[in-house]
Amino acid sequence: MTVDKWQILRLNLDSGNVRSERVPERWQRLGGRALTSAVVAELVPPQCDPLGESNVLVLATGLLAGSGASSSTRLSLGAKSPLTGGIKESNVGGQAGYALTRLGVRCLIIEGSMPAGWCVVRLGPNGIALNDAQDLIGLDVYQTVAELRHRHGPGAAVLAIGPAGEIGLSAANIGVSDVDGIPARHAGRGGLGAVMGGKRVKAIVIDPSDSKPPQPANKKGLSAAVRRFAQALWSHPVTGESLPTFGTSGLINAINARGGLPTRNFRSGSFENAAQISGAALHDLILRRGGKPTHRCMPGCVVRCSNVLPDEGGEELTRGLEYESIALLGANCGIGDLDIIAKLNRRCDELGLDTIEIGVALGVAMEAGIADFGDAEAAAALLEEIGVGTPLGRTLGHGAAAVGRMFRHPRVPVVRGQAMAAYDPRALKGTGVTFATSPMGADHTAGNALPGSTLPDGTEPDPCQAEGQVMLSRYLQHLAAVFDLLGLCWFTRGPILGDHSLVTDLLEAQHGGRWSFEELFDLAQQTLDTEIAFNRDAGVTAVNDLPRFFRTEPLPPGNYTFDVPVEELASTLAGSESQAS
Amino acid sequence: MTVDKWQILRLNLDSGNVRSERVPERWQRLGGRALTSAVVAELVPPQCDPLGESNVLVLATGLLAGSGASSSTRLSLGAKSPLTGGIKESNVGGQAGYALTRLGVRCLIIEGSMPAGWCVVRLGPNGIALNDAQDLIGLDVYQTVAELRHRHGPGAAVLAIGPAGEIGLSAANIGVSDVDGIPARHAGRGGLGAVMGGKRVKAIVIDPSDSKPPQPANKKGLSAAVRRFAQALWSHPVTGESLPTFGTSGLINAINARGGLPTRNFRSGSFENAAQISGAALHDLILRRGGKPTHRCMPGCVVRCSNVLPDEGGEELTRGLEYESIALLGANCGIGDLDIIAKLNRRCDELGLDTIEIGVALGVAMEAGIADFGDAEAAAALLEEIGVGTPLGRTLGHGAAAVGRMFRHPRVPVVRGQAMAAYDPRALKGTGVTFATSPMGADHTAGNALPGSTLPDGTEPDPCQAEGQVMLSRYLQHLAAVFDLLGLCWFTRGPILGDHSLVTDLLEAQHGGRWSFEELFDLAQQTLDTEIAFNRDAGVTAVNDLPRFFRTEPLPPGNYTFDVPVEELASTLAGSESQAS
Repeated sequence: MTVDKWQILRLNLDSGNVRSERVPERWQRLGGRALTSAVVAELVPPQCDPLGESNVLVLATGLLAGSGASSSTRLSLGAKSPLTGGIKESNVGGQAGYALTRLGVRCLIIEGSMPAGWCVVRLGPNGIALNDAQDLIGLDVYQTVAELRHRHGPGAAVLAIGPAGEIGLSAANIGVSDVDGIPARHAGRGGLGAVMGGKRVKAIVIDPSDSKPPQPANKKGLSAAVRRFAQALWSHPVTGESLPTFGTSGLINAINARGGLPTRNFRSGSFENAAQISGAALHDLILRRGGKPTHRCMPGCVVRCSNVLPDEGGEELTRGLEYESIALLGANCGIGDLDIIAKLNRRCDELGLDTIEIGVALGVAMEAGIADFGDAEAAAALLEEIGVGTPLGRTLGHGAAAVGRMFRHPRVPVVRGQAMAAYDPRALKGTGVTFATSPMGADHTAGNALPGSTLPDGTEPDPCQAEGQVMLSRYLQHLAAVFDLLGLCWFTRGPILGDHSLVTDLLEAQHGGRWSFEELFDLAQQTLDTEIAFNRDAGVTAVNDLPRFFRTEPLPPGNYTFDVPVEELASTLAGSESQAS
Repeated sequence: MTVDKWQILRLNLDSGNVRSERVPERWQRLGGRALTSAVVAELVPPQCDPLGESNVLVLATGLLAGSGASSSTRLSLGAKSPLTGGIKESNVGGQAGYALTRLGVRCLIIEGSMPAGWCVVRLGPNGIALNDAQDLIGLDVYQTVAELRHRHGPGAAVLAIGPAGEIGLSAANIGVSDVDGIPARHAGRGGLGAVMGGKRVKAIVIDPSDSKPPQPANKKGLSAAVRRFAQALWSHPVTGESLPTFGTSGLINAINARGGLPTRNFRSGSFENAAQISGAALHDLILRRGGKPTHRCMPGCVVRCSNVLPDEGGEELTRGLEYESIALLGANCGIGDLDIIAKLNRRCDELGLDTIEIGVALGVAMEAGIADFGDAEAAAALLEEIGVGTPLGRTLGHGAAAVGRMFRHPRVPVVRGQAMAAYDPRALKGTGVTFATSPMGADHTAGNALPGSTLPDGTEPDPCQAEGQVMLSRYLQHLAAVFDLLGLCWFTRGPILGDHSLVTDLLEAQHGGRWSFEELFDLAQQTLDTEIAFNRDAGVTAVNDLPRFFRTEPLPPGNYTFDVPVEELASTLAGSESQAS
């Protein structure tokens, strides 16, 4: 093992002190989410104010960062979440993970909060500097990142919050610059932008110039493993063909056909205008306007599932327009026009708001009578209210649960305070189990049981039936935690599930020693245990279930209810034996 | 013991079924808060939605109800609180406890929620009827009670919610008719009005005509004990003189002089216009206008600490204007005019809002820049926003913590989500310990260490010093729970602390058997244990402390901070040995 070359940086904002240390023994086989969760559990009082100085904001790359493998520099951000009140990890593509890797930094821990004023944390080969950020306050995420790249050069990776994070809204995200320096990638979920705002950090600039990542244990072996992995991705139908063509928006038609596309605040699983907002429609629109239907979000990714969408005049309208955003800002609000959805998406990105949380919050607000479903102008106006911080805007910006509380609306699709991603759990029951039981709240990235998901033994539970879903969710939650600790994009799982050595060869060549997929599952279990224990101590509800209406209200057109027994749900993440096979 | 004559009524709103049963063995020596907390702990899933059908609303009289003793028919209302997320008891004077007593009902348990529409629960000698309440929806508390007394006769006691309870605001209270049938008494704290609204119960009418309470064990002995207790109250300086003259508003000058009167969102403990809103000023104003400076809130009370304040034209402006309301709607909002405070108080009573929670919420909102301190017109307009349910109004109506969350204001004087009553814990540290540790949240009725409070051994900790305050709060929290289980007004404690037999004679004559004050303390401990266990299971924060600013920000003019060590706070309610002596 040579991972002890990696550094941990601890920045204390109260004092301005920075400590650099080698990754300690107990964390050496941890990366990404496994590391952020370990750090949060060790440093954060579970009962603290998530926006106060006792919370920490942790950035960590995964174990495969620095390997040069495709899609391996996702960056995990961890903290206690203002949305769930529990532990949170949100991971993101873009340049930041790569830039940290180039500095040899496995983990940056930001503690305390600025005693006065706002700062930009600037991290480079010579360490950390805190720059005054007063002149950036009020700027949106796009403006902030543009200004900081102007100041620090186009090679700088930037993480930034917008007005939403500045005023501490629970749906605030952290925007991260992509390969072109545009902040269209996001640590979206859990309100981590508000945590950063609570520390009075407007942005983090990572300047990797002149730096080198730690050397691998076996340079030649690593090159071969990296090549083999890229080949496997290219030749897999998902990563080689469908994702590079349609991106994640290809799911619109698939999930709509399954009757699981959240439509008008989860009233229906099928949207009559799905074809107009589908992956094919988006692909055509992008091509017609001379945009980029395929685009990598992070350096070295061969999957390239992102996109750049221009407007009718050829000006860039938005980029990184994902299935989740299209489904929730679109179908869930009754909006069936890609241009409108793209504008809402862009505005969320500028304001620094999670499109999932906001799409669901808008759906709840619309059903509660604040605006009509399908009223695009009202939706846009509501986003502006968030931006200027009116009482209604702040409520929306605090997320779907806050809207539900304010209006005492009975149908609020959240778990542990966090909005569901764009999969109705009545038609996609494995994902429903994940929503109900994940320590992350209703988060698809914690273990999404898309149609076609199989257990290690090859059985494929029917997404519409309760049978087998607890086992499937358990497996996928562990698997997702494995990818999160590797820093590897979840989309690369296709070839890996067919050949675990794609990953273990990379690990062994990079870090030395022996690695097995079983060990990774053990680390995943350890991570889940850590997270569940933190949540228990934080007083986050122990009930593992979905809001009641999912059990009582049949979802058209399939008319399924969520019928996985509660007692089975309780067992989903119980025990600590590995589920790998 | 003959308490088994008392009945428990269980009303299930889902089915409309009513079950009447004798008080079961395990609850026979419980009354008031001890009984509501036992029932809530037994019937309510700790993690349930407080406004959902799984919560219950429990009404219980105390052990001395039916004795005929002065001040002994306070009614306890219990439920899981939407404000604290934990167990809550709020007790109230007025007619309702007396009316229930006349029916021989110790406890009414309302379960489930109306399947459709709203109801009035009508309780009389012939049992329970559910009347349609659709025509009452939108009426304020005063209007609702007037209409129901018109329908059911002036002898009916009425509990009702206003618009705040209907729309489920967390600061919604339950108004209760006083001896004149005016709903100026309130089960104020914890949002129990929202729980009632969640069940779609607009009002509860209790008609005791033709009914008789259960017979006492020793009628003659009881008469003598009742007379002796009344004599003791008359001859005590507090209950015989100061309370009947100034009511609770006499505290304004006393607490202001101590530097503990919350002023402008707890920025200062002294209000420059305290003299204008003092008990003496109120007394003079009432006399000048021909009102009632002394008035009983419940039948048979000899203390008569309430009041009726007319306006300049002689029309009734408000009644039951208490210290808490004057301090928090007044000084805490920078308002030094009794007429304005009286109008705000009346409007809160009409809308069905807790004046404590709203006074603190307005203070936070003012400090957050929503209105200027002292701007009475703005305060009145904000109350109207609550009434019509604008986004800002709903936020205020959800209480101080909700306002703090929305505006991310750092100075929010709440514990466990509930606003502090009108005692700054930096100058009144024993009450601060109670705020920090009571399972009820920051509630002065859970154990208020007013200046002059003594431990059973006669020592009198200095309110401004940390020493002895944990022990004092512990003693007072147990003592308050004793009064709450007896159904006895806390204001009668003066003579009782000098002679416990005033209470035990009443209990023995009424219920038979032997009673000791020590046993009552054991029951109090049992109640506190039950409440703490419920809160733990509900995931209510286990941290026993005040918001940080009370520890860091000196309070003028005394410049005290709250300095009772956190580790001592944790022990306040630990253990289960009786503290009686």
